[in-house]
Amino acid sequence: MTSNLFEKLPDDKTKEHFEDLITANNVRIERIVSYGQKSSEDFWYDQSEHEWVIVLAGNGTVEFNNGQKYTLEQGDHLTIPAHTKHRVSHTSTEQATIWLAVFYSD
Amino acid sequence: MTSNLFEKLPDDKTKEHFEDLITANNVRIERIVSYGQKSSEDFWYDQSEHEWVIVLAGNGTVEFNNGQKYTLEQGDHLTIPAHTKHRVSHTSTEQATIWLAVFYSD
Repeated sequence: MTSNLFEKLPDDKTKEHFEDLITANNVRIERIVSYGQKSSEDFWYDQSEHEWVIVLAGNGTVEFNNGQKYTLEQGDHLTIPAHTKHRVSHTSTEQATIWLAVFYSD
Repeated sequence: MTSNLFEKLPDDKTKEHFEDLITANNVRIERIVSYGQKSSEDFWYDQSEHEWVIVLAGNGTVEFNNGQKYTLEQGDHLTIPAHTKHRVSHTSTEQATIWLAVFYSD
């Protein structure tokens, strides 16, 4: 009945892995595992839901289209309001970066 | 714009500390810091919302009123459906236990 967020990391390090932990009507909780991946240069996420995200291992940089950049280390969390364009400009190439993201609407 | 979940731990170790990180209509994200506290013997949480909870430091035991007990170590997560009576029967007395809880409705 319990699972561990740091275990069963995906083997394939050539891509990023997204796994839903909870899907309900109003909330989705997702584990993201990155192995050095970043968004394409011209790619911006433009999400209809708010996102609260925390880095629990590794590190990753979130860039907003107003130029602001935040590098999240273990424990750092950030809220990304809906339709706030952003991309991931860097993730650690030395270790797995484990993100926990909660998507929710108003 | 970022905060760190593992920093600014409360000084007062004689009680448990609850801090809302996100409050929206349909979701609430909370950090709980326990210093060995546990629920009273005859106390059961009976919540109107579902709860997804993960332990990110220390350890804690969640007991359900059907007798099941789960000790959560770092990274372990558990879903507690609404109105599933439960209590915290133990938290670490050796270090702070940091819980991250997401409360949501259907």
